Amino acid sequence: MAFTYDEVKAAYARISPYVRKTPLEQSFYLGDEKRNYFFKLESFQRAKSFKIRGALNKMLTLTPEEIERGVATISTGNHGSSVSYAASLLNIRSAKVIVPENTPQSKIDKITYFGAEVMLMGRDYDEAHALGMKYIHEHGMTYIDAYYDDPKIYGGQGTIAIEILEQNPDIDTIVVPIGGGGLITGIAVAAKAIKPGIRIVGVQTEKCPAMIRSYEDGVFYEEYPCEDSICDALLGGIGALSYQLVKDYVDDLITVSEDTVGKAVSFMAKEEKYIVEAGSCVTVAAIMDNRERIGGRNIALVLSGGNIDGKLLLSLMEKY
Amino acid sequence: MAFTYDEVKAAYARISPYVRKTPLEQSFYLGDEKRNYFFKLESFQRAKSFKIRGALNKMLTLTPEEIERGVATISTGNHGSSVSYAASLLNIRSAKVIVPENTPQSKIDKITYFGAEVMLMGRDYDEAHALGMKYIHEHGMTYIDAYYDDPKIYGGQGTIAIEILEQNPDIDTIVVPIGGGGLITGIAVAAKAIKPGIRIVGVQTEKCPAMIRSYEDGVFYEEYPCEDSICDALLGGIGALSYQLVKDYVDDLITVSEDTVGKAVSFMAKEEKYIVEAGSCVTVAAIMDNRERIGGRNIALVLSGGNIDGKLLLSLMEKY
Repeated sequence: MAFTYDEVKAAYARISPYVRKTPLEQSFYLGDEKRNYFFKLESFQRAKSFKIRGALNKMLTLTPEEIERGVATISTGNHGSSVSYAASLLNIRSAKVIVPENTPQSKIDKITYFGAEVMLMGRDYDEAHALGMKYIHEHGMTYIDAYYDDPKIYGGQGTIAIEILEQNPDIDTIVVPIGGGGLITGIAVAAKAIKPGIRIVGVQTEKCPAMIRSYEDGVFYEEYPCEDSICDALLGGIGALSYQLVKDYVDDLITVSEDTVGKAVSFMAKEEKYIVEAGSCVTVAAIMDNRERIGGRNIALVLSGGNIDGKLLLSLMEKY
Repeated sequence: MAFTYDEVKAAYARISPYVRKTPLEQSFYLGDEKRNYFFKLESFQRAKSFKIRGALNKMLTLTPEEIERGVATISTGNHGSSVSYAASLLNIRSAKVIVPENTPQSKIDKITYFGAEVMLMGRDYDEAHALGMKYIHEHGMTYIDAYYDDPKIYGGQGTIAIEILEQNPDIDTIVVPIGGGGLITGIAVAAKAIKPGIRIVGVQTEKCPAMIRSYEDGVFYEEYPCEDSICDALLGGIGALSYQLVKDYVDDLITVSEDTVGKAVSFMAKEEKYIVEAGSCVTVAAIMDNRERIGGRNIALVLSGGNIDGKLLLSLMEKY
């Protein structure tokens, strides 16, 4: 698989009319005499997640025939909502998001709100995935990958790096959450092409260190058994393309405790006044616990999404 | 005093390079079959308040001599922070924000963070104002008005209307919080020039209905005794220019209860995922209690600022 900065540049030209150039906002409270921290607020992206970047880039490269046959994905989360919204923005009439039968109605409502049709299949995610891929294949639809190995998806996510370095060319370090790895891979490849000396640091929750263990164990963990975590967007295995590239493009990988992530969510709401989902707050948590190790002088923290359950938000704000 | 749309148009040309064009984001949860609601998120404006629009417009019209002598204001809140930030953005070296001696350190820190010098004067706001105006006059500085009668301030605030109608020309109703009245007056004059049929609704907290009582009583309440309120940004009297114009440009004025405002703050955080200060959430509260009276089909709710104390935010989220 080839994936280079050219893919990201092309994606940026394609998706810019449709995505929000999200703010890069200096932190009031994290900085000190040596360091300035900046939040890249993808929590303000359309559908409140960076995922729409990759989804749009993929859809904008489909042929008229492919568009006619439609697009589909399998996701109850940010990726599902973003695929739904991207299809609406591009007037793709046939857009289906496949979810397990036990999906809460609130998640279904959110996806349908943006325009896609939700299809219930299977008793859990694995069944939904198996049945869904079969359905998508049989109907000749285009599958919109979440993070596995589609360069168009990685290219879309990488556009965040272009924006960050346009917004502040002095950024010397970018800290990025890692779930499947599509986001950090896109960002790292683009950022190092633009500014070779830049440092990229990836952060995982201690409850699902799939990328770190993959390298430690020398095993590509396409699936990874995770413990319960408040970082629901970061759970599961990693993508094939990210496994291939993270080792060359990412300078450091660290884990953060769920406790510090909870503190970070509460800090972001009460002090900085941003509602950010827990999985995204791993980057803030990483600064709280690993400021010196991460280093840098002008550090961008990618806050990848803003979809957090109201009850969880309140409980974290009460606890921390 | 003359104040027309031309002032707002000129302001827009001046300040656009410096302010953020804040998102106009459709509500997920407030809409129904008849109506769509959109949040104009000035809570994401620089320094988290619309106040920077007027401050920038004023500073951008100063002569080199005036800039040399410096700018100043008297405010512990959003206006003080915004004047500080605006002066930094324009590299105005002499910028002073005068506050009472009993101002909490956190508020002082916020203002100095943006670059201005904070000067402590007087035991309360009234003393600070008297001593501050004397100081400003003696030093030949330019006073940056918060809302009283400077058309440049009103013109800056009115640029929000231009953005709203650019972002969604179908907006037929704009709901705006009223404190001193600068924001609603600027918006109303501009919006009605662009789209004469548009409805403008102003909202005050029941704890400080200064504008409504001014018209009811036929008295210009330059000062108004307010009860304790969570809407700290809306307390006090009204501006001379707003008193003159609101009667002709605003279609309806309503009050909301503090209880509904608290519910609105909690709803915005837990459901819509935006942190908005209580004074700004009067517009959301107005929809909760007066949906039919406000009417419209595509309604913009101005959320004027995002500076809410973390403890207050948590207590409202716990209560409602």
